[in-house]
Amino acid sequence: MKIVYGDGHRGHAGAEELMYNRMVPMFEKPERMDQILRQLGRTGLTEIHVPTVHDLAAVHRVHDRRYVRFLETVYPRWVAETGIEGFATAYVFGMRGMRQTPGDSVQAMLSCYTFDVCVPFVAGTWTAIKEAVDVTLTAQALVAAGAHSAFALCRPPGHHASQDLAGGYCYINNAAVAAQAFRDHGAARVAILDVDYHHGNGTQRIFYERPDVLYVSIHGRPEEEYPFLMGFADETGAGAGEGFNVNLPLPKGIGWGPYGEALALGVARINAYRPDVLLVSLGADAYKDDPVSAFRLESSDFGRIGKAIAGLRMPTLFVMEGGYAVEALGINIANALTGFLEA
Amino acid sequence: MKIVYGDGHRGHAGAEELMYNRMVPMFEKPERMDQILRQLGRTGLTEIHVPTVHDLAAVHRVHDRRYVRFLETVYPRWVAETGIEGFATAYVFGMRGMRQTPGDSVQAMLSCYTFDVCVPFVAGTWTAIKEAVDVTLTAQALVAAGAHSAFALCRPPGHHASQDLAGGYCYINNAAVAAQAFRDHGAARVAILDVDYHHGNGTQRIFYERPDVLYVSIHGRPEEEYPFLMGFADETGAGAGEGFNVNLPLPKGIGWGPYGEALALGVARINAYRPDVLLVSLGADAYKDDPVSAFRLESSDFGRIGKAIAGLRMPTLFVMEGGYAVEALGINIANALTGFLEA
Repeated sequence: MKIVYGDGHRGHAGAEELMYNRMVPMFEKPERMDQILRQLGRTGLTEIHVPTVHDLAAVHRVHDRRYVRFLETVYPRWVAETGIEGFATAYVFGMRGMRQTPGDSVQAMLSCYTFDVCVPFVAGTWTAIKEAVDVTLTAQALVAAGAHSAFALCRPPGHHASQDLAGGYCYINNAAVAAQAFRDHGAARVAILDVDYHHGNGTQRIFYERPDVLYVSIHGRPEEEYPFLMGFADETGAGAGEGFNVNLPLPKGIGWGPYGEALALGVARINAYRPDVLLVSLGADAYKDDPVSAFRLESSDFGRIGKAIAGLRMPTLFVMEGGYAVEALGINIANALTGFLEA
Repeated sequence: MKIVYGDGHRGHAGAEELMYNRMVPMFEKPERMDQILRQLGRTGLTEIHVPTVHDLAAVHRVHDRRYVRFLETVYPRWVAETGIEGFATAYVFGMRGMRQTPGDSVQAMLSCYTFDVCVPFVAGTWTAIKEAVDVTLTAQALVAAGAHSAFALCRPPGHHASQDLAGGYCYINNAAVAAQAFRDHGAARVAILDVDYHHGNGTQRIFYERPDVLYVSIHGRPEEEYPFLMGFADETGAGAGEGFNVNLPLPKGIGWGPYGEALALGVARINAYRPDVLLVSLGADAYKDDPVSAFRLESSDFGRIGKAIAGLRMPTLFVMEGGYAVEALGINIANALTGFLEA
């Protein structure tokens, strides 16, 4: 399997997020990539490609231009306007009755373009965001050119980000950008299977009214799990997209039994859709010891996920999403990929 | 002047708010009331009434019932669901594309019913919220019964809270509840003058489409000041309320000169409206040393504010809002009230 990875994410580090009622060091950190690279090496997955630099055209196919410009400029503007170093984050949010288009103030932009206190910006954040897109588009091009599979090993993750909203460690929706790139290069139908523990509310929002991209997600029930206000089973798409959004929420504490059943349902739905290509939003936070999640998958279960995906026999692009049990993260991701390859 | 005050707010204390990128002790704290009471005593304003307990009927005239129930129950539910003591606060917010009606999860409710990280809930918060309403409605009844003026000395403040959104230290919009109570007891027109440093986005939202309540606010420009996404001069009301919302934003750093001119404009607009009664959302955070604000008013300028309001010669209900330079807060509030009384 071709793997694409670059080191440009390292500067996106050192910030904090709000966990319940206190600021804590971000769980989404550079060491995650190190653990995965190390374990991929041990597993013999050593064909690492460096990312090709892309312009922003593919990003603009999915994301609002002013939003992208915000992501690129927010940190230096924050320092200039507030005088505060460290990291930028919003503390007020543009909800009902408020303007949905910010003016020139960086605080208005943060309030309008982010939806939680888990997407901080430091000096190196934009470089990391941009390289994550380059990694993903490079891997996308490999699959588009005929590779059976590829893995975009990137951070920050993307599935909570939508057209003009960042949140949950996500700024640009890497998987959505890749899905659109497949469409723009000739694929008639693209399916996205999201096995991250959290609902990919950003991916859902982006494709909610479209029949050409099927979104299937297995995740913690929003009644009790982030992002709380999206990811319900009755969200099935709208307009022309009706029926092309499949949420499979599961309660906290479940293990492989219910997970495997949901996965089988999702895989069957994708098989029936007959996409030209499959994207997998690959989070490993369904793992039993993940510090911010509550499923109980074993490391070996990730191999079963990979095997189930392989059963679809489709060109497959894996895109890295979450997973915060850092020590086990490498094993879990490697198991998913080898489970896929050896099936 | 009749003053209404109760001690039930004291348990609303000890929580933290997000200031830029770190959690800090709340600026809105019980000591604010102590300073004001002390200075009112020194000034001879000693006619203190205790609040009468009201049911929630008047609150429900302004606020969504499910929202009010949320305010009442959120803290014990938070402890039961999260196991975390201390204080409840949201860290994710229901923005564009997300559900605007929460289910049973306390985190979904927090995400749906609060718009910033400056409205924490502790065990004593609901008691304080409820008593602030009782204080305000008791003072309102005194004016409705013929008193020339009254002062509702209450916390938490209210002007950032709207029908179903809490934020900026505000949970129930005390001034809006009182304005509606005046209307429901026979006043044809009510004017609200908001001299708090921050725009009263909650009050604006509540009355934005109504001609029977005029809202006039003098505040820091939203381009550079909280709440960032409301309070612009071109927000003049909508529908039947067109022309009955008057925002007078001013830049950071200004002193009495520009402030006095804006106040004269606001007072003239209220005079032309000929309301039956005037409410004043009385914040003192336009003061030069306020820790979260950026106007440069002197303590003596608050006397000029009181005098300008007295010039309207209307029955007047003062309702306490913000002001966080605690040591000077008593003097500034007392100056506003004596300026009004001695004019």
